[in-house]
Amino acid sequence: MQHRSAHRSLLVIGSVALDDIDGPFGFHRDLLGGSASFIARAAAYFTRNVSVVAVVGDDFPAKHIDELTEMGVDTKGIERKKGETFHWVGRYSNDLSSRETLDTKLGVFGDFAPKISPEQANAELVLLGNIDPPLQLSVLEQLKRPALVAADTMNLWINIKRDELLKTLARVHTLMINDEEARLLAEEHNLRRAAAKILKMGPSSVIIKRGDAGALLFHGGGVFAAPALPLSDVKDPTGAGDSFAGGLMGYLAYAGDLSPKTIRTAMIMGSVMGSFAVEEFSVDGLRGLTAPKIQERFDQMAELVSFESIRL
Amino acid sequence: MQHRSAHRSLLVIGSVALDDIDGPFGFHRDLLGGSASFIARAAAYFTRNVSVVAVVGDDFPAKHIDELTEMGVDTKGIERKKGETFHWVGRYSNDLSSRETLDTKLGVFGDFAPKISPEQANAELVLLGNIDPPLQLSVLEQLKRPALVAADTMNLWINIKRDELLKTLARVHTLMINDEEARLLAEEHNLRRAAAKILKMGPSSVIIKRGDAGALLFHGGGVFAAPALPLSDVKDPTGAGDSFAGGLMGYLAYAGDLSPKTIRTAMIMGSVMGSFAVEEFSVDGLRGLTAPKIQERFDQMAELVSFESIRL
Repeated sequence: MQHRSAHRSLLVIGSVALDDIDGPFGFHRDLLGGSASFIARAAAYFTRNVSVVAVVGDDFPAKHIDELTEMGVDTKGIERKKGETFHWVGRYSNDLSSRETLDTKLGVFGDFAPKISPEQANAELVLLGNIDPPLQLSVLEQLKRPALVAADTMNLWINIKRDELLKTLARVHTLMINDEEARLLAEEHNLRRAAAKILKMGPSSVIIKRGDAGALLFHGGGVFAAPALPLSDVKDPTGAGDSFAGGLMGYLAYAGDLSPKTIRTAMIMGSVMGSFAVEEFSVDGLRGLTAPKIQERFDQMAELVSFESIRL
Repeated sequence: MQHRSAHRSLLVIGSVALDDIDGPFGFHRDLLGGSASFIARAAAYFTRNVSVVAVVGDDFPAKHIDELTEMGVDTKGIERKKGETFHWVGRYSNDLSSRETLDTKLGVFGDFAPKISPEQANAELVLLGNIDPPLQLSVLEQLKRPALVAADTMNLWINIKRDELLKTLARVHTLMINDEEARLLAEEHNLRRAAAKILKMGPSSVIIKRGDAGALLFHGGGVFAAPALPLSDVKDPTGAGDSFAGGLMGYLAYAGDLSPKTIRTAMIMGSVMGSFAVEEFSVDGLRGLTAPKIQERFDQMAELVSFESIRL
């Protein structure tokens, strides 16, 4: 994987958090979490042109930011403020198929107001993590002329800030959400119909993440299904969707074009990075990867869905 | 699609039923149902070498059997007995994502004892529908030397006849079940691990049907994921899994070989036939299909998962 200077720049806006996670593998405290933590690490394997905007408290271990910097990520936009870092406490069911939130302490994330530097304002690819829709819009208003804006959101905003979310969506190119969020946003259970409704809200493409059922890309009347690799060892599903998004956007930055063909390959790279992430706790599954390891899993994905075309 | 005499013979053992189905599209009474009804129709598009063993009551409309005969299916093994046809009454949720059984009247199916004719005993491919495991075993004992025995089962038998089911599985080549059944049988939530456990019970391959998440084939250390086509109009999920099984086995009979390559293509044909089935009530979605229509949907499946291999 060459780190070409021709890579497009990728700007990531999201959360950096500490998670306490309970589940079948015991209770783990103060794990590094947050959407931007997964997105930036997954993307950094594809390009050194990643820049992060986030906020942490003065309790946040410096080593986590140092690690990102060492991976080539521009961390100058991770603001350190007086107060506590965003802290999520959750518990997974024994089979890891569901989770409940036990506690959420927003801390300094409660007042997060993303500030985009002049350099970041020129970003070509932008990933707006799941934050308050008006904040997403404020970021969009600071950007010069991004080639691709992708955004995530969540049930909370769909439920309590639908109007504001719709204003943001009108300016987003790609919405990346999970199946339940897509159904809630579109008020439609059927995913193909839900996608069609979302495409009328502004985005030119919508990516629906379905966990171990893979991800679907809908755009311009077409659809692409990225499979999920069936894994025998899943430890922690936290961050799977964010790692998917990071792999996808990182690959797009690496490839340098946004053709439908490249976007399909990027979806697979997203699925590859998601598969690494869930095999270990926190971001551990995204540590120590190499181009050959990523390539090997990409090839496994190709083999997973490969079949011969025939004529009846 | 040529109906070559070289096609392998396919023997189907299953239920033929009348269903009353309630759901978002209203209440429909006396719909043709039962596993063999879907399997045989789906398979008949690929080969005229399909033979069915089933039982119906004297209340069963002759037209349903006549239709199968006209499709080239050998229906001599569909026994008509005094009494009522197996009758299932169910209700789907408004979003079609779940269903409940309201009533089950076994009727003549309660005493079903499959009788295999000397000609049927020579069948090369056999699909054992979901019936009492000792009955499945009795069929196996009547067969001469089948090249491939595939079997279905259900939660009921896994729960109350596990020992008998294990005896049957020891002689089955391919088990086709849904994800919940696989988890129950293997006592393991993770599907890759569940499949590995099932492969130790006898079958050399296991196919796990996941509804709109597609189907997974596990065999010899390898895995293949057949996608499900995202459909905008789903009316009745009843028989989707049986139509999948019929398309798969019918294509294997048509292709004439059981190579891994052919089995992958057969999985896609299964998914194609399942997609047609759910778009209409009962077996209506399997009526009036043609080779070009099947080919078109097969090609859509290929396009759905196609992506370019790259080197990082």
